[in-house]
Amino acid sequence: MAASNSPAAHPAGALSYGASGVDYARIDPLKLDAQRAALATGAHLDRHGFSEVASSRGESAYVVDVGPFYLASIVECLGSKALVADAMAALTGKSAYAGIAQDTIAMAVNDLVTVGATPLVVQAYWAAGGSDWFNDAERAEALVAGWKRACDQCGISWGGGETPALAGIVEGGRIDLAAACTGIVSPKTRLSLGDHLAPGDAIVLLASSGIHANGLSLARQLAERLPRGYLTPLTESAVPTSFGAALLEPTVLYPPITEALYRAGIRVRYAVNITGHGWRKLMRHPAELTYRIRQLPDVPAVLAFIQNEARLDARTAYGTFNMGAGFAVFVPAEDAERAAAVARKAGVDAWVAGSVEAGPRRLVIEPLDLEYGGDELGVRL
Amino acid sequence: MAASNSPAAHPAGALSYGASGVDYARIDPLKLDAQRAALATGAHLDRHGFSEVASSRGESAYVVDVGPFYLASIVECLGSKALVADAMAALTGKSAYAGIAQDTIAMAVNDLVTVGATPLVVQAYWAAGGSDWFNDAERAEALVAGWKRACDQCGISWGGGETPALAGIVEGGRIDLAAACTGIVSPKTRLSLGDHLAPGDAIVLLASSGIHANGLSLARQLAERLPRGYLTPLTESAVPTSFGAALLEPTVLYPPITEALYRAGIRVRYAVNITGHGWRKLMRHPAELTYRIRQLPDVPAVLAFIQNEARLDARTAYGTFNMGAGFAVFVPAEDAERAAAVARKAGVDAWVAGSVEAGPRRLVIEPLDLEYGGDELGVRL
Repeated sequence: MAASNSPAAHPAGALSYGASGVDYARIDPLKLDAQRAALATGAHLDRHGFSEVASSRGESAYVVDVGPFYLASIVECLGSKALVADAMAALTGKSAYAGIAQDTIAMAVNDLVTVGATPLVVQAYWAAGGSDWFNDAERAEALVAGWKRACDQCGISWGGGETPALAGIVEGGRIDLAAACTGIVSPKTRLSLGDHLAPGDAIVLLASSGIHANGLSLARQLAERLPRGYLTPLTESAVPTSFGAALLEPTVLYPPITEALYRAGIRVRYAVNITGHGWRKLMRHPAELTYRIRQLPDVPAVLAFIQNEARLDARTAYGTFNMGAGFAVFVPAEDAERAAAVARKAGVDAWVAGSVEAGPRRLVIEPLDLEYGGDELGVRL
Repeated sequence: MAASNSPAAHPAGALSYGASGVDYARIDPLKLDAQRAALATGAHLDRHGFSEVASSRGESAYVVDVGPFYLASIVECLGSKALVADAMAALTGKSAYAGIAQDTIAMAVNDLVTVGATPLVVQAYWAAGGSDWFNDAERAEALVAGWKRACDQCGISWGGGETPALAGIVEGGRIDLAAACTGIVSPKTRLSLGDHLAPGDAIVLLASSGIHANGLSLARQLAERLPRGYLTPLTESAVPTSFGAALLEPTVLYPPITEALYRAGIRVRYAVNITGHGWRKLMRHPAELTYRIRQLPDVPAVLAFIQNEARLDARTAYGTFNMGAGFAVFVPAEDAERAAAVARKAGVDAWVAGSVEAGPRRLVIEPLDLEYGGDELGVRL
């Protein structure tokens, strides 16, 4: 229930979120109302002998102290990436729903692990526009198989879910996909809500696989502008592919990395899933701290293509997309190189990208000469 | 992820679920595939030192043994009741979204408590067809206020949630509402998965408040047939009301009752949330047992109206709607009268309705001379 600022100003002719159908300014008053109302319910846990971890309000997952460990829970929506899969299926005859399933689970588990939780159970929410959605057996089987594979990769039990047919609410031929995830933080020292985040800590970035599931509204709008649409060859890519196929690369699942970091004894003080608001999410923690980035990743071909074709300046691109970094862990400086090595060994590229400094809450991306102020990311009350 | 049979055959001219847009037969193969795939992921919990409670597969919430207690989780969809609220708002100018919020939470928590869990955290899933949905401030505020009030009534902390704008997936002007809920079963002896369900146990039924959120597709189809639609006066009702207003009576929240039963020392052996499939849900447990009902509740006016206007025979009506009983608890015979008294004292009418007997899996409703075979409810692998 994070409140959101709209992306930074755009150069003339560029695509923007306002134009692409997502108007965060209109949603925010409701989100703020909801956050206030939700906050007032936390005290109910007292009657059960438990208590909320107040600093998890406004973070990516909600945390409750249940005694021997913390409980963390979340629900997350895929967003509009399924529309790209539908469009590509119409063009190519191939279903990308196995990847879409992975994307949906990634939205939930990559947020859940930021608080130090081990995801245990995922529940599927697959709301179709009508029961005929399930008539496409290949697509339905891909969704099931991809969902299971993502659970296998993360060591999560798929507990069940809900598969309603919602004609009149969900559009015909479409599906609204979400995942609910419950996990525990155990031992309790794994809790990584940033209480010990401090100047001198290192920022270790983990590579993304592409656009993940953030920024698809803008990408879809761009596809409409291109003469060959989703089939536009992606010349930036090392291997021949199309814009649409590259968009559908599934989101990296980060739980195996956070679990590997824990097993290696890395002390993660804070973590951020880089989704909406792009790199501005690096300032997610409310403390007055400056985040300085010195090492950028290679930009995935699909994001370089979008930045170029949509004529986005660097400020907008890094303030909107993951630009090659899908997840950040904040660790003591002496753990940093080892954290990156552990992640690489577990299969995800990683690098020590920068550090936390004393100073006003802001993000400085040195190689791009960019700075975002703390007021450019409003995700909490 | 329960598989579903279609309702029993209907008399000529009657409304049926096939005709009203929900074709369970088309969804079931996917559900069965998903159940099989999900089943295969349960063993992942071993690596975290935990294990699933296998008998919770196919029940209303998924249960994991995390050591000191059990963890239960669920995600549930409201279904199409919001469409009735939208239609009534267009006719009367009043928003019923506070009640709709309660309905949505009820769908999740009333299922969660069947396994003996205390709901702790609810996450909101509010996917709108566009950010303009939130422009109607009265409606949005009602949704927030109703959501909070339901949390207050159940002693649940509202942990957060997701409020995406999904143009192109959710229809314009509509909202797809769901709730994810996490709870614990503590002490572990509260687990009520029916392992000790036995002949001689009593069936205690708890009153519903009306249609709840089950059977709305059929009710909507009926409204289209009526000359005055949702504004048709409900002459069956003791207080003047319309068909539409009566449909929007919010679902009873049963967690305060199940908590009161626990505090009173009632040993609940099994519990059923009476939703889809109506009273056939009383046969939910897989054991070979016969369920005999001897005492019927008064039928809520809105359900009597539907049964009459849609020309449903008793077999169809009780096999589809809650017909006045929204929840069932199965308790030792000697606890039965006290269980009903505890529920009534906690504000929900209740009565000892019947008993569990040795015999083939079937439901016998004696006062109506009705019998449903176990093959008329397929909700598990």
